[in-house]
Amino acid sequence: MLLSSKILKISFMLLIAVFGLLNASQRKPLNLMPVPKNIKMNDGKFRINNKLKIEVLGECGEKLLKYSTRTLRRLDGRTGLFFEQDFITSIGSVKNATITINSGRVGKVILKEDESYTLEITSKQVKLKSATDIGAMRGLETLLQLLSVDDQGYYFPAVKIEDEPRFPWRGLMIDASRHFQPIDVMKRNLEAMAAVKMNVMHWHLADDQGFRVECKTFPKLHLLGSDGVYYTQVQIKEIIKFAHDMGIRVVPEFDVPAHATSWIVAYPELASSPDKRTIERRWGIMDPTINPTDDFVYIFLDKFFEEMSELFTDDYIHIGGDENNGKTWDNNEDIQKFMKDNNIEDNHALQAYFNKQILKILTKYDKTMMGWDEILHPQLPKNSVIHSWRGIESLVNAAQKGYMAILSNGYYIDLIHPTTKHYLNDPIPADSPLTDSEKKFILGGEATMWSEFVTPETIDSRIWPRTAAIAERFWSPGSVKDIDDMYRRLDIISYNLEELGITHIKNYRMMLRRLTNNNDILPLKTLIDVIEPVKIYQRNAQFEGTYTSHSPLTRVVDAARPDQQIAREFNKLVDGYNRDQGDISAIKNYLKSWKSNHIKLERLIKKSPILKEIQPISKKLEEASTIGLQAIEYIESNKKPSYFWNQKVMKVLKDCKKPVAQTEIMVITGIEKLVQKAGK
Amino acid sequence: MLLSSKILKISFMLLIAVFGLLNASQRKPLNLMPVPKNIKMNDGKFRINNKLKIEVLGECGEKLLKYSTRTLRRLDGRTGLFFEQDFITSIGSVKNATITINSGRVGKVILKEDESYTLEITSKQVKLKSATDIGAMRGLETLLQLLSVDDQGYYFPAVKIEDEPRFPWRGLMIDASRHFQPIDVMKRNLEAMAAVKMNVMHWHLADDQGFRVECKTFPKLHLLGSDGVYYTQVQIKEIIKFAHDMGIRVVPEFDVPAHATSWIVAYPELASSPDKRTIERRWGIMDPTINPTDDFVYIFLDKFFEEMSELFTDDYIHIGGDENNGKTWDNNEDIQKFMKDNNIEDNHALQAYFNKQILKILTKYDKTMMGWDEILHPQLPKNSVIHSWRGIESLVNAAQKGYMAILSNGYYIDLIHPTTKHYLNDPIPADSPLTDSEKKFILGGEATMWSEFVTPETIDSRIWPRTAAIAERFWSPGSVKDIDDMYRRLDIISYNLEELGITHIKNYRMMLRRLTNNNDILPLKTLIDVIEPVKIYQRNAQFEGTYTSHSPLTRVVDAARPDQQIAREFNKLVDGYNRDQGDISAIKNYLKSWKSNHIKLERLIKKSPILKEIQPISKKLEEASTIGLQAIEYIESNKKPSYFWNQKVMKVLKDCKKPVAQTEIMVITGIEKLVQKAGK
Repeated sequence: MLLSSKILKISFMLLIAVFGLLNASQRKPLNLMPVPKNIKMNDGKFRINNKLKIEVLGECGEKLLKYSTRTLRRLDGRTGLFFEQDFITSIGSVKNATITINSGRVGKVILKEDESYTLEITSKQVKLKSATDIGAMRGLETLLQLLSVDDQGYYFPAVKIEDEPRFPWRGLMIDASRHFQPIDVMKRNLEAMAAVKMNVMHWHLADDQGFRVECKTFPKLHLLGSDGVYYTQVQIKEIIKFAHDMGIRVVPEFDVPAHATSWIVAYPELASSPDKRTIERRWGIMDPTINPTDDFVYIFLDKFFEEMSELFTDDYIHIGGDENNGKTWDNNEDIQKFMKDNNIEDNHALQAYFNKQILKILTKYDKTMMGWDEILHPQLPKNSVIHSWRGIESLVNAAQKGYMAILSNGYYIDLIHPTTKHYLNDPIPADSPLTDSEKKFILGGEATMWSEFVTPETIDSRIWPRTAAIAERFWSPGSVKDIDDMYRRLDIISYNLEELGITHIKNYRMMLRRLTNNNDILPLKTLIDVIEPVKIYQRNAQFEGTYTSHSPLTRVVDAARPDQQIAREFNKLVDGYNRDQGDISAIKNYLKSWKSNHIKLERLIKKSPILKEIQPISKKLEEASTIGLQAIEYIESNKKPSYFWNQKVMKVLKDCKKPVAQTEIMVITGIEKLVQKAGK
Repeated sequence: MLLSSKILKISFMLLIAVFGLLNASQRKPLNLMPVPKNIKMNDGKFRINNKLKIEVLGECGEKLLKYSTRTLRRLDGRTGLFFEQDFITSIGSVKNATITINSGRVGKVILKEDESYTLEITSKQVKLKSATDIGAMRGLETLLQLLSVDDQGYYFPAVKIEDEPRFPWRGLMIDASRHFQPIDVMKRNLEAMAAVKMNVMHWHLADDQGFRVECKTFPKLHLLGSDGVYYTQVQIKEIIKFAHDMGIRVVPEFDVPAHATSWIVAYPELASSPDKRTIERRWGIMDPTINPTDDFVYIFLDKFFEEMSELFTDDYIHIGGDENNGKTWDNNEDIQKFMKDNNIEDNHALQAYFNKQILKILTKYDKTMMGWDEILHPQLPKNSVIHSWRGIESLVNAAQKGYMAILSNGYYIDLIHPTTKHYLNDPIPADSPLTDSEKKFILGGEATMWSEFVTPETIDSRIWPRTAAIAERFWSPGSVKDIDDMYRRLDIISYNLEELGITHIKNYRMMLRRLTNNNDILPLKTLIDVIEPVKIYQRNAQFEGTYTSHSPLTRVVDAARPDQQIAREFNKLVDGYNRDQGDISAIKNYLKSWKSNHIKLERLIKKSPILKEIQPISKKLEEASTIGLQAIEYIESNKKPSYFWNQKVMKVLKDCKKPVAQTEIMVITGIEKLVQKAGK
């Protein structure tokens, strides 16, 4: 394990380097995310001009050459410099190179491969050293993040960095079943993952709503189970190669025995119940479940996993195993008889029996089995990996029992929580009950992008930038957790992700243009800048209709983004003001702009009926802002408002918090605090 | 030919329908582009709600079913309505359908296939009829463009449209050699083409800078000739199918005998000279040329075209044939001897000899040969197609000699001309010298997107929206040429193209964010909104360095867009003002904002060195705006400026027109007119 006891020793140095407590006034705080393990800042600047050349040395292969060329292109894209060097196509042989990359060997794209690197920058030279090409790639991303400007031009600051990851499993799960995510979505997200040093793309490829992989042995899986929307095997190989070229593993998930409607549409003989099935269009926990007592099922799955084990080259295969409601098992007499005959006491035990058979198959094909935490059962063999999603308890429980485990509970980015919530969620928190030897079973974690409510148009805005902060949690020392500094760096990383094609920023205004029917977007933007989609699983629950896989995801709730920056800023300003710091005029300007926005937005709504549903929330923002301004008047005039005013407005504000059109206003908390201050 | 004598008869009706000269006040002008052949507007509105259902009838196939489902999704994306209908998967059988599509047969994706349709909308029903599924697709795009709103919601206006194209060849050429354009770029542009009823994607696949197709017979072509950046045959097939599903033909171009460096890098034995070659990194006309006197060349090309004829299913193959400077032929003694022995008088005749051999090969594989207008030669057989690029004369010449011909001269969208220039360029203008029977040889035209100066990030902004106006030229009656109405509709079509993933609008601010190093983009936007890249081929010429295929295309000149809307608007305001119409305050506001912008931009430039090069042009805009405001002062105070002032400022303005950093200010003409008015 890479988790090192040195962490405490270096944390003070980290504080100095990252949080700007610098002795030399000309040094700027660094914008690195994830924060490296060890940073020493020096004096001097490595100036960048068109003579800059990169030389790659060592026993590295073609992948690092390509990655280095790509680095050069990203650097000229940002600086506009016409570098003389065109392609880096061979080891060594570059004359007058000022950047040298020395990589020991070609790394394997496997768990626990060495990803460490050292990066030393002086005013004359950039030296990147690593045990493997993958480590060098991680170091190149650090180098790109170090790009700085002053009035003389572009430079890299003099620095010495020693870096390695805290956890070896740093993943992002993308659900391509609920809403299919085409190849270009996958590629740009893989590039973004590499930019923040993530190394596992967990691909959720089959679920009730669609089976998304071409299967040659059982072609009805993709032909009948996908509405014609699936990855060909050529495309799967293309993505795996694309990921491997950046040192990212691809772990496929085929969810069994539940979440299996699409399997059963294609092959009804796999099912535990005889009902005729069609591909599921709604969201939730569905009944169709594979029959764990049927020999045919295991013959089928053996052939299936034989094919998939060859297609997906990673050592791990994820079998899901979550949310089996057991209904079709309870209602099937043969299954009930089988359980009795074999002393299987309940459905959980029956699923453990099923998992054991799958494990045998996967083991035969040299794969390690992993599954969601429901698969944890006394009979589960120890060489399985537990993927904790229902609570960190299951992670602790798994490690204590001697299972390898990764954490996703707390990293469900589809639930629209603020970045902080994910950022402070640690696979091994300071108060972890685990012993040091148990801690070694914790491999890391994964952010999970379930796709019920995202399309290729919106998925990036749900993944990024929040996932960059999660990536830092998995890579950086556990002591790195300054929220303000995280947000400062996140805003920079977020904008840099755009150069990789990530659409989280640019699709915002695009969606607003469509929502306004090509009218002036400003009144709508003013509102959406301070509202967010409802959290957790409220979106389905609060909707009067029914969301399906073909519902439009182009409404205001979809344009609204998690962790809205302006709302965050407003609430922070109020906190400062309440501590008698900071600027009341900025607070007033916000409140005035929101108060005067409603009448403008109403005019816009008339021109674009899709906006009708947000009329009430716009009205609420007007009301709440009016209250906020009144509260400031009381504070500034040193008059105390009446008890009744206070009661009345707190009730109005409470009402303003209620979701409308699956969105909620994020600045009410701040306004409530103003009212409270006025009442004191 | 579809060019019909009915055009004159219907043009008055068109004027009434499109340009808003309407009897009923509640009728809005339509936003159709291209304008249909025949429109009759009626009273009534077809209301759209979630009960809307589409039924497909007739002998059409799966393609139209998919296209109809996609129409439904685009409609719910814009309206936010939760249509009950999910997928349209079979002919007929939809109960209570309010939209019926009746298509006669599955059209062939070939030249001159029937693309006509009629669309009749009443308050109760939408009826779309067509001879082929392709015609129905064209009609569905018209239907989507008819989507309208009033205070009650969404509707289609009652209308009867009879429509068919003026020309059967309505193309867009994309150069994937100079800068490779990945699959997703091709797909989104194909969707946009279908949205404006274009039907030919001409794919420029090989040139000096790269050979972009996997070739199994001669694999060195893509392995050595492409820097590893090429389309696999699987991808080529994917694109052809994607295009065919929307009724778009894919015509490949393999440019021979010149523009052939990448061929010769892979197979030096094809060359007319023995020099060692590497893939070309610069732009221009290069020497390497295939040897037309070598038997090996024809054996090679026979096998090559045999493979490509099978891969590319269209009846036409484009062999380029342009810009052969003949140098390597002049310097090769064997070639000179061959010419003498065979009475070949000059290089043009030698190329005609070469073309004849290629024609034989292509004919053997059932392909029709086409090439740029250089291939026109007395010995060229009549079943070849001439692609006119150097001037409309060659088009006329070809048609008069009995060759089929298409026009690209005047449609070179890489040259950054304003939309009007392309829009008013007609393959058969009113004063065409061609006889009616000669006119039948003019098949249509193609916009050409040469890619020296575009990347996947910027290509859409060069193609769109201007190509939509070109598409109208190819589809609509020649009488449709009202510039103001074209721009009115173009702005709407432009924004609608975003729903297909076209990035021409959204990448603008993204590039500005990068250019400003993530600072406030407004001062930069204020400048770039009124500047454009230099026109025609000045970009290379005016640059002090050398542009290559790996130069950064992320500078201000790349963010600047053709036909800048705000500059257009300003110049139009000045024209109105000079005719004593319109609003001086809007003109003043523009001038003031430009005048005060320079100081803000200078602050920004300090934070982002990539902007340094535009400091002088920002200064010029400040100077010119100051002059404009002074001129208005003279006009408003009825004082005449001195002769010397006039002389001086006209000189300054002339200087302000000079390009800086390969960009030019587009509002100087308007400011000059203000000065002229002041002087009167």
